[in-house]
Amino acid sequence: MTTVENGVNVQALLDARAALKDAPEAAQFTWRASAKWQRGVHSTTTIQHFFGLGQEQSHKTEAVFDADHPEVFAAEDNGITPIEYLLVGLASCLTAGVASVAQNRGIQLRSVESIVEGNHDIRGILGVDSDVRNGFNDIKVTFTIDADASKQDIDALVAQSQKRSAVFDALTNPTNVTVEVA
Amino acid sequence: MTTVENGVNVQALLDARAALKDAPEAAQFTWRASAKWQRGVHSTTTIQHFFGLGQEQSHKTEAVFDADHPEVFAAEDNGITPIEYLLVGLASCLTAGVASVAQNRGIQLRSVESIVEGNHDIRGILGVDSDVRNGFNDIKVTFTIDADASKQDIDALVAQSQKRSAVFDALTNPTNVTVEVA
Repeated sequence: MTTVENGVNVQALLDARAALKDAPEAAQFTWRASAKWQRGVHSTTTIQHFFGLGQEQSHKTEAVFDADHPEVFAAEDNGITPIEYLLVGLASCLTAGVASVAQNRGIQLRSVESIVEGNHDIRGILGVDSDVRNGFNDIKVTFTIDADASKQDIDALVAQSQKRSAVFDALTNPTNVTVEVA
Repeated sequence: MTTVENGVNVQALLDARAALKDAPEAAQFTWRASAKWQRGVHSTTTIQHFFGLGQEQSHKTEAVFDADHPEVFAAEDNGITPIEYLLVGLASCLTAGVASVAQNRGIQLRSVESIVEGNHDIRGILGVDSDVRNGFNDIKVTFTIDADASKQDIDALVAQSQKRSAVFDALTNPTNVTVEVA
């Protein structure tokens, strides 16, 4: 029997699933980000700490992300635009899902690449036409996967990844967002 | 009269609004990301090029983002989790909006900070309970703003930013996402 090694510790995830079945309170996570305005539409957002498994947790290092608008919007382009961060989240979530499902199904991956395209009518955010929404019109993700598996099995990997993706759900279904001033 | 300078070129945005009113096709943007699986649930996503104003456009530099799972999920924590990227997008979008609206309303900002918290029941993505959604339960954003303005005017800034935010819309309303294998 060939050992499949995609680098995902599926056993740990299956153990977590079993453990959290009897301890739903441990499954309640809170992810956090702290943003700071710099100048113009440039901001930096920092992420390190989160809550989960009943206690404070931390990433190994602090990550800092610049966001800005491009020069065609008369800004300084000190980082990607805020809406592009959603594409980063979607691409990485579906990719992680493909790797996890492949490991669970005994499929060796050689490469997984994807292109994500978000169509956006910017008349919404500019207030040109109130019938145009502010966010994306739609998003398309195209995977190119090289793996020891049939086309059908690869399609099924991607479908299952989509079914269990946190970010796919967050973009395709509404979430209640509350905004307050301290 | 005091000159307000938050670093946002509001006139350029107002000019763009006027120009795009008569040229809706120029307002059709496509934002793009390219993701590459590394190992385990670690991926890197690259962003540089996009389409808008009728032609190919580009950020000044290529930006690369690592995503991974933390060590408590038996992964290597080579980057923040995919779902945390949504919080980066939300925080930076609302912050850019506050700066733009403040500039437009003649309000000088001194500092704008925010904390974004996304509550997430991970039983959804682990498949523990099919009644639990995969994405966030809810998200809370708390701004702390120091500006030459009344509390009421600051509240109004944040409300208007929310109303015109691309990412706020993308998270609070559904978007159609198509996933294909090439």
